[in-house]
Amino acid sequence: MCDAHRDKTVPLSDIPESVDRVTSFGADGGCRIDEFFIDRAIDFAWMAAGKTQPNPLVGALVVKDGRILGEGYHQKYGEDHAESIALERAGESARGGTLYVTLEPCAHTGNTPPCVDEVISNGVGRVVIPTLDPDERVNGRGVRMLRERGIQVDIGVRSDRALLLNMAYFKSKLGLGPAVTLKIAMTLDGKIASRRGQRDDITGTEARRMAHRLRAVHEGVLIGIETFVTDSPQLDCRLLDSVDPPVPVVIDGSLKFPGRHPWLDRRQMVILTSKDAPEEREAALVRAGARVVRCGTSESAIDIAEAVAELEKRGVSSVLVEGGRKVFSSFVEAGVWDGMFLFVSPVLFGPDGVGLADRAVGKENLGARFAGASVVSGDVVVSLISEKTRSAILDRLS
Amino acid sequence: MCDAHRDKTVPLSDIPESVDRVTSFGADGGCRIDEFFIDRAIDFAWMAAGKTQPNPLVGALVVKDGRILGEGYHQKYGEDHAESIALERAGESARGGTLYVTLEPCAHTGNTPPCVDEVISNGVGRVVIPTLDPDERVNGRGVRMLRERGIQVDIGVRSDRALLLNMAYFKSKLGLGPAVTLKIAMTLDGKIASRRGQRDDITGTEARRMAHRLRAVHEGVLIGIETFVTDSPQLDCRLLDSVDPPVPVVIDGSLKFPGRHPWLDRRQMVILTSKDAPEEREAALVRAGARVVRCGTSESAIDIAEAVAELEKRGVSSVLVEGGRKVFSSFVEAGVWDGMFLFVSPVLFGPDGVGLADRAVGKENLGARFAGASVVSGDVVVSLISEKTRSAILDRLS
Repeated sequence: MCDAHRDKTVPLSDIPESVDRVTSFGADGGCRIDEFFIDRAIDFAWMAAGKTQPNPLVGALVVKDGRILGEGYHQKYGEDHAESIALERAGESARGGTLYVTLEPCAHTGNTPPCVDEVISNGVGRVVIPTLDPDERVNGRGVRMLRERGIQVDIGVRSDRALLLNMAYFKSKLGLGPAVTLKIAMTLDGKIASRRGQRDDITGTEARRMAHRLRAVHEGVLIGIETFVTDSPQLDCRLLDSVDPPVPVVIDGSLKFPGRHPWLDRRQMVILTSKDAPEEREAALVRAGARVVRCGTSESAIDIAEAVAELEKRGVSSVLVEGGRKVFSSFVEAGVWDGMFLFVSPVLFGPDGVGLADRAVGKENLGARFAGASVVSGDVVVSLISEKTRSAILDRLS
Repeated sequence: MCDAHRDKTVPLSDIPESVDRVTSFGADGGCRIDEFFIDRAIDFAWMAAGKTQPNPLVGALVVKDGRILGEGYHQKYGEDHAESIALERAGESARGGTLYVTLEPCAHTGNTPPCVDEVISNGVGRVVIPTLDPDERVNGRGVRMLRERGIQVDIGVRSDRALLLNMAYFKSKLGLGPAVTLKIAMTLDGKIASRRGQRDDITGTEARRMAHRLRAVHEGVLIGIETFVTDSPQLDCRLLDSVDPPVPVVIDGSLKFPGRHPWLDRRQMVILTSKDAPEEREAALVRAGARVVRCGTSESAIDIAEAVAELEKRGVSSVLVEGGRKVFSSFVEAGVWDGMFLFVSPVLFGPDGVGLADRAVGKENLGARFAGASVVSGDVVVSLISEKTRSAILDRLS
C-alpha cells in the first residue's frame, strides 16, 4: 500500500559514504526530516488521548522552508480536525508548503467539511502521511483527490508509530477485532519489581503521564489479581485533565477480589475467572456490582484469546494490559497483542528483581518490531508493534 | 558553560498547549529541529570511528531554509575538517545559513587552517554546537571569534551524545583520566545470554557494526575470562574498513588464559590478574607475548579502579568493557565508567537467561543519564552517560 519512502526535502549529498549508509547511533538522527516532522505530529496527536473517541487521534504540521508555520491536533470529538487547525494557523503562507498529518486527510463531510478541500484550497504543494485512513469513506479517496489536483502525496513515513497511535481505530474499522496493548515499566535490567510482592514506582512523572494517555485510549485496563493485591493500583487517568478512566479488568482465577472496592460500584469492572471458581463468590461480587466472566483455562491459566473476545462482547473492545509478569507473559505467549510500550528507568534491580518475562520467547514467536525509542524526562520509552497485526492492517489499507 | 538551549528555527505556536508540553511518545519527535540536525551530524561523525585519532570525530551540516546544503565529517587524521567539507559542498549558498557541527570549530592552525576563518568567510549566519572543544588552543576561543564577527552561536544541543562520541578525547584533554565505556547486547527482558555458558548472537549486523565502531574508538577492549571461554570472541573491527583492532584485555584472576592464542603474539594483549595468581602461569603467558598485570583484589574480585590505572600506564587509556555480567557489574559498582551503550533485540530469554546485573544498584548510585535512544535495523540502541563524568567535563569547559 505504501509508496517507497521518499524524502524530497533533504537532497542526498554525493559524498562517498552515501547518507543512506549513515546509521543512527543513539538517537533518531539517521532518520529523514520527514520522519522528524511526522514524529512531532504524532507526539502532538497524543495530547488529546481520551478526548476524540470514536474519532482517531490526529496531529498536523504545515512546514515551509524548514519552518513550522502552523501545527495542531484534533482536540475533541466534534471539533476541528488537525489539518484544519494547522492550515488556519499557517494562513496564506501555507501556499507551496508541506502538510504533515498523521492520517490520510478525510474526503467526506462529517461534523466538519472534508479536509482535502481545505488542503487543496490552501495551495499546499505536498502532503506527507504515515498511512491511509481505514474509514471506508476515506481509505485512499483522500489521497486520490489530492493527487488529481497535482498535490504530491508521500505515504509510509513512521507508519508503525502512527498505527500504535490509533490501534483500536484501525482494527475496528478494518474488522480485525479488539486491540490489545501491553504496557510495562521496567529497569535497565528488565525487572518490573525489586522483588516479588513489592510495589515500586519505577519511572518518573512524565513517563507515567504517557502511561495514562495509553489508558485513556483503551476501553479497558487489565491486571492480574496478584498485581491488584501487591500494588493496589488506581488504574485511572489522574495525570490528565478531564478524561474518563477505562474499565478495570482483573484476571482472578479463584475470585479473591474483595467484596468492597470502588471499582465494583463505580467503574463497571470486569473480573475474568475460571470455570471452577466458587459460585458463592461470584454471586457476592455480582451483587456488589462486578461483571464476572468465566473463561476456559489451560494449565490453570485463563485462555487469553477467549478472555479478550468475552471483553469485546461486553463493550470493552480495546484493552491495555498492565501486568504483572504472569499476565504479560500469557498475552505474549498467546500471541494476543498488537502494541507494546516499555518505560525504562536508569536503575538496576539485579537478580532478586522480578523479570519481565516468565518464559523465553524467540524472535519469530515474539514477532515484535520496534516502532520507536526516545528519551523522555529521564526515562526511555520504547514502543513495539506486532508484525502480525501490522501486516494485517497494511494489507487491508488499499 | 552552556547557553540555554534556544531554537530559532522553529517558532513556537501559540496554541493552548504549548509545544514545550508536547512530550515524545516513542520517538525523538518532541525534540527541536536543531537536535535533529545535530543528531544527524553526530551519526555522520561516527562513520570515521578509528580513523581520526588523536583528532576527535566531528560531523557537520550546512542548513538553509530547511534544506541540507552540504554535509561532511572528518574522515581521517590529517585530512579536511568536517566544517570545511560541509561548507565547500554548500558553496555560495551557505551564506546566511546555519552550520551544525558536533564540536566547537577550531581557532588554530594545525594540519589545516582554522575552521573559524572559513566559517566567517563563507557568510554563515548561525553556528550550533553541542559543546566547546576541550583542546586548550580552542576551548571557547572559536566561539568568541565567531561571536565577535556577529555570528550567532548556540551551545548545548545534544551535548550528552556529543560527549559520548568523543569521551576519550574530552577526558584526556581535560586531565580527567582514562575513558571507560560499557557495551552490552541484551534482550527486551535484560538478558545477556540465554543461559550460563551459552553464547548467543543477540543483535543484528547493523547493531554489531556500531559495536565495532565503539571498539574502534577505544584503545582496549575488556572482557572477563568466563566470557572469553564461552564466547571465543575476536574483539576486532571486522565489520569496518581498514580500522586497527583495539588491544584485548582479559580479567583473569587465576590465569586460565590459554598458552597459545593469536592475541598473545599479534595483539599485545593485557591480562589483568590477582596478586596470588600462579607465577609459572604468568611466566608462560609473558613468554608467549602477553602483558600480565597484577592488581589488588577485594572479595576475590580485581580492584577496577586500579586495573584501569594500570592499563593507562601501559598506553591503554580508553577501554570498552564488553562483559560478561560479573565484569559489567564490577565496573558499575566501582563507579568506574563514563558511557554505556545497550543494544537491545526484540526477543525474550526469560528466567533462565543471564541478567545484565548481578546486584541491585539504585538510581543515585548508578548515576546514569539517558543520552539517546533509537531504532536501528530491527534493534534498539540506548546510550547513557555517567552524571559524574558529565558534570566533571562540563564544569571544566569554560
